[in-house]
Amino acid sequence: MSVERCVLVGQSGGPTAAINSSLAGVISAGIEAGARVVGMRYGIQGFLDGRMVELDRAFADPADLDLLRETPSSWLGSCRYKLPTPSEDESVYQRLFDRFEEIGADAVLYIGGNDSMDTIAKLGAYGRDHGSDISFVGVPKTIDNDLVGTDHTPGYGSAARFVATAMREITCDANVYDLKSVTFVEIMGRDAGWLAASAALANPDIVLLPEAPLDVDALLGRVAELLAVKNTVMVGVSEGVRTADGRLVCELAAASGADVDEFGHLATLSGAGRWLAAVAKERLGCKTRSVELSTLQRCASYVASEVDLSEAFELGRAGVRAALAGETTKMCALERVSNDPYEVRTALVDVLSVANRVKGVPRAWISADGMGVTDELLAYVRPLVDWIPIELAALD
Amino acid sequence: MSVERCVLVGQSGGPTAAINSSLAGVISAGIEAGARVVGMRYGIQGFLDGRMVELDRAFADPADLDLLRETPSSWLGSCRYKLPTPSEDESVYQRLFDRFEEIGADAVLYIGGNDSMDTIAKLGAYGRDHGSDISFVGVPKTIDNDLVGTDHTPGYGSAARFVATAMREITCDANVYDLKSVTFVEIMGRDAGWLAASAALANPDIVLLPEAPLDVDALLGRVAELLAVKNTVMVGVSEGVRTADGRLVCELAAASGADVDEFGHLATLSGAGRWLAAVAKERLGCKTRSVELSTLQRCASYVASEVDLSEAFELGRAGVRAALAGETTKMCALERVSNDPYEVRTALVDVLSVANRVKGVPRAWISADGMGVTDELLAYVRPLVDWIPIELAALD
Repeated sequence: MSVERCVLVGQSGGPTAAINSSLAGVISAGIEAGARVVGMRYGIQGFLDGRMVELDRAFADPADLDLLRETPSSWLGSCRYKLPTPSEDESVYQRLFDRFEEIGADAVLYIGGNDSMDTIAKLGAYGRDHGSDISFVGVPKTIDNDLVGTDHTPGYGSAARFVATAMREITCDANVYDLKSVTFVEIMGRDAGWLAASAALANPDIVLLPEAPLDVDALLGRVAELLAVKNTVMVGVSEGVRTADGRLVCELAAASGADVDEFGHLATLSGAGRWLAAVAKERLGCKTRSVELSTLQRCASYVASEVDLSEAFELGRAGVRAALAGETTKMCALERVSNDPYEVRTALVDVLSVANRVKGVPRAWISADGMGVTDELLAYVRPLVDWIPIELAALD
Repeated sequence: MSVERCVLVGQSGGPTAAINSSLAGVISAGIEAGARVVGMRYGIQGFLDGRMVELDRAFADPADLDLLRETPSSWLGSCRYKLPTPSEDESVYQRLFDRFEEIGADAVLYIGGNDSMDTIAKLGAYGRDHGSDISFVGVPKTIDNDLVGTDHTPGYGSAARFVATAMREITCDANVYDLKSVTFVEIMGRDAGWLAASAALANPDIVLLPEAPLDVDALLGRVAELLAVKNTVMVGVSEGVRTADGRLVCELAAASGADVDEFGHLATLSGAGRWLAAVAKERLGCKTRSVELSTLQRCASYVASEVDLSEAFELGRAGVRAALAGETTKMCALERVSNDPYEVRTALVDVLSVANRVKGVPRAWISADGMGVTDELLAYVRPLVDWIPIELAALD
């Protein structure tokens, strides 16, 4: 008598354009293995409240699975829930493992970023310590691309494609009038500059990342030099850009009453781009503006990278296969085999080596003046974004 | 001996995803007619400074013309220049007509919105009064869709497609957490709500247009009702939404010291969406956020409507044909023949009947409570946007 196996899957953290593609991969491999596939609603948190959905039944039609693959955001719902350690609160582990047993879970897959890998690490360790034979495997996703242990993360390529495309469109837009102007495009990424760096694919004049301390005077000097020889200066700015003393630029105005007086009502403007636009206007006396790419960076699926969606799907599948083969406390990762032609393979890494660490852009991939990126970085990003701008030569 | 004819063309006003498609249409028809095609750099203003480009030569390769068709923003550059009346300043007319004669222009095409049609009207009238046989024809473009005399304007369909797509993506994004939230998506259109109305294609809960006075209490009441039965409330807000006394919502906070005190630092927040998000948070006590779609609305070519690009191209061609046939002081317009199947034809209208008038959304196409649009409006917009969301059913 064969016993049906059961795969439990959840999504956690911020949504991306590719996280549902990983979910589709999990469902696809689960169905292929003849397993029951159960989804947690709103991650671990909803699951603790008993909220589940039968995914193999909901996606029995392959057309629905294709649609799920291309649907942005977290279809199961998400949560931002940091699992306490067992010593802080063991009861939550007892409740979770009771539920795992109740539904007969053989494998628990969690699709998410850093906190999700922390969840997998904790559940895996607790299970091992308490004789559970459930497998816990993490499937990475984050537009921030800041997870260690993997060449890059699903979600990043699509977000980067949106950012590069938007930077190109906004550059076209900024060039229309015959006047000097500086445009700051603010890009997500509080701690890592990977996403802001992807703007470099659209060839802006300056890119500012959190990894390179910002010298505001040097920046304005560079902008002034550029304005002397061209009309339009484009600057990609990570929301997490900081000055040498470690202060976030977006907090500079609020931090000091003097700044507020000097630049008017700036204290209430939160964005680094807005603040820089106001300062540049004040000091350089030219037209400036700031565009925040905002929420669309993580959900713009109509400009999703097919490479990204495909890798996200394959990592979901690899996660199920590994978990059902008994691997646990692991994260599915991508290893880059070559850049040209672009080729990756999936791998398994110890999730403990991933959780609670952040991978920033290496300083060697940032130009010496801290205001641009190197060809190495572009070569790294380009195949993930899967986008080559074809452009008319600009006039003049 | 045949004399080569000459078509002069300029672009004016804000850029759109389709204005270069009209330019491509002008070049294409000009080349077809064996004419020389000369482009004004930065509109009438750059042209007055003698800035021109030979377009038939620059676009001799049809592949470049195809690329131009899909390139967002104004490739020739633009200006915001309101031509004075001849009685205010005749010298500018003398300079312009001297230049027209100098290059041997037979036809002057101007691609733009309301101000551009005003320019065509003035130049046409001046030419007629002074015995010139140059033809002046306007080719409409504006994402605002607020020109009279035409069923709709090129640029609107693509901007509306971006808005509807973004509204759908942001709705997916807003649904991820298991909590009550209200998201305001702020959409361009200071005087006409056409663009904001297009958000209705993505089925938000509420749409607020400048044409329907906003009652803030009624809005918050409706939001509260919705929050009682669902988690996520989505509101599309035109930046030009006004209260019954005609005040712009985005100016409400700044207008009154009391508002500033009551809601903190609101005086410096310019957007209607931001202000409503702050008020809703204060009064309803739930999570709120505001997303400004910003510049991408007018330049996001990757989500351009093919119907829009195609109509923009045809209007450019029709403009050249009409002008070379001796028509003057006209605007090329679109007449809708039928909705299903969607069919339009080009027409010529007197540009004087267009200039300096604004076409808003008819009150009959706005729902009785002023917080949504009717099926008639959706039927009007749908074929222009050329976009049908295919979506998975949401869970719960």
